[in-house]
Amino acid sequence: MSHSRAFDQAIALTPVSDNVFKGKTSEAFQNMVGPFGGATAAILLNAVLQHPQRLGDPVSLTVNFAGPVADGDFEIEATPLRTNRSTQHWLLLQKQNGEVVTSATAFFAIRRETLSEQQLSAPQAPAPDTLQRVDISIRSWFKQYDFRFVHGIPLQPHRPDQPADTESLLWIRDFPPRPLDYSSLTALGDVFAPRIFLLREQFTPSGTVSMTHYFHATSDELAKVGTGFLLGQAKASRLHSSYADQVAHLWSEDGVLLLTSTQSVYFKE
Amino acid sequence: MSHSRAFDQAIALTPVSDNVFKGKTSEAFQNMVGPFGGATAAILLNAVLQHPQRLGDPVSLTVNFAGPVADGDFEIEATPLRTNRSTQHWLLLQKQNGEVVTSATAFFAIRRETLSEQQLSAPQAPAPDTLQRVDISIRSWFKQYDFRFVHGIPLQPHRPDQPADTESLLWIRDFPPRPLDYSSLTALGDVFAPRIFLLREQFTPSGTVSMTHYFHATSDELAKVGTGFLLGQAKASRLHSSYADQVAHLWSEDGVLLLTSTQSVYFKE
Repeated sequence: MSHSRAFDQAIALTPVSDNVFKGKTSEAFQNMVGPFGGATAAILLNAVLQHPQRLGDPVSLTVNFAGPVADGDFEIEATPLRTNRSTQHWLLLQKQNGEVVTSATAFFAIRRETLSEQQLSAPQAPAPDTLQRVDISIRSWFKQYDFRFVHGIPLQPHRPDQPADTESLLWIRDFPPRPLDYSSLTALGDVFAPRIFLLREQFTPSGTVSMTHYFHATSDELAKVGTGFLLGQAKASRLHSSYADQVAHLWSEDGVLLLTSTQSVYFKE
Repeated sequence: MSHSRAFDQAIALTPVSDNVFKGKTSEAFQNMVGPFGGATAAILLNAVLQHPQRLGDPVSLTVNFAGPVADGDFEIEATPLRTNRSTQHWLLLQKQNGEVVTSATAFFAIRRETLSEQQLSAPQAPAPDTLQRVDISIRSWFKQYDFRFVHGIPLQPHRPDQPADTESLLWIRDFPPRPLDYSSLTALGDVFAPRIFLLREQFTPSGTVSMTHYFHATSDELAKVGTGFLLGQAKASRLHSSYADQVAHLWSEDGVLLLTSTQSVYFKE
């Protein structure tokens, strides 16, 4: 099965009744416990994208990982909380056996041409074709992506003469390549491992509790990226008392900022 | 009325029934259209803080400003969506006349002592007592804060020989001073004007559509700040097609990162 079919299958939903959809977790996007959070986020967004009352394009999405998602069937409830003239606010709940496993809110809008100003330039990085694909096969979802690290590979030996640094810089795209859309951009925004893994050489329990994406990319910008690589940068600001933040950005190969993303991440010890 | 009473009054809620609270908008925290978003965010957090089923302290909060909040009464519905052993996920809805005006999700947790590492240092800034309080009296909520700008005052003439810059750096605290707590930190995280105002000399319509706070501060760190100033920095990454992001941080006077905050902000033209 090609990746594009694996991803499309992972986020596929069937309408059940007004505001309710049915889906199934995907073998291809398995993580340690349950599915890759980026796939779950893409599923929630997809419920809005295919909702008959949807207005406009995604501008912001917040996903709260409330409990483990078990392998198998789930339901998505997608409720438009408020629809204005050109904006729309959504509540999204993923449930299994009647219990909330993931909650989310999304904001969609019809965007217009305005002043356009990019304040955050893409960092300098060698071209993706000069870098090797990292072969990580620990979790099945890793295999669905083409990771090409510039620096900051998780769980690598830390050089003791260097200050602790939680920054990763990498090229990333779907594997095999698949044209970028809002769903795949949503998943790609979650490919950055917990930053605690940059401070440790051994795996310790950790996981995202809440993630927020701001979509800068308009649909014409997504189309322009096509199957190109995205340059991703992620860094923690502080890790303290069981929780850390991380701020991430994704740029196109020609330096257009497509996504700003933040996460709150649990870590043990 | 002293500020501490003004703020405490603005966020005061009365229990009505299970999960439902009643409140009233405050004259002291009026903005252009409706109340200051930071006060609304603090009200939503406060519903959880005083909920009998609340577990732990706030770790993340996302607030979606769905529609204008009219002067007068409102209801807050605070529903625990999922309670785990040491974590809890909340759904919060602010309603007027049965219609959702603000939606939010919050994540609370019992935090433990772990590795502690701050990656983002406080920027260099002159001490707050060497700077003048900015006297902005356009909106009533401004008067509830002591703003001391290092740079990046909104709506100031832009020097044409300088590149466009959306960064503000400022000291901020409640006016008159009030000991910091999770509610006031929530409001302080929203004192940064829309970044578009750093690119323009004249007011144009703009407003936050979604805001996410990550609380790094533990209760002992809040107590240590007391009535001290916070150093705040905010900057946009990109402003494009009606929406911009902004990433902000708040540090204590001794350089401890207390809050990471992001916003998605609408702007006209």
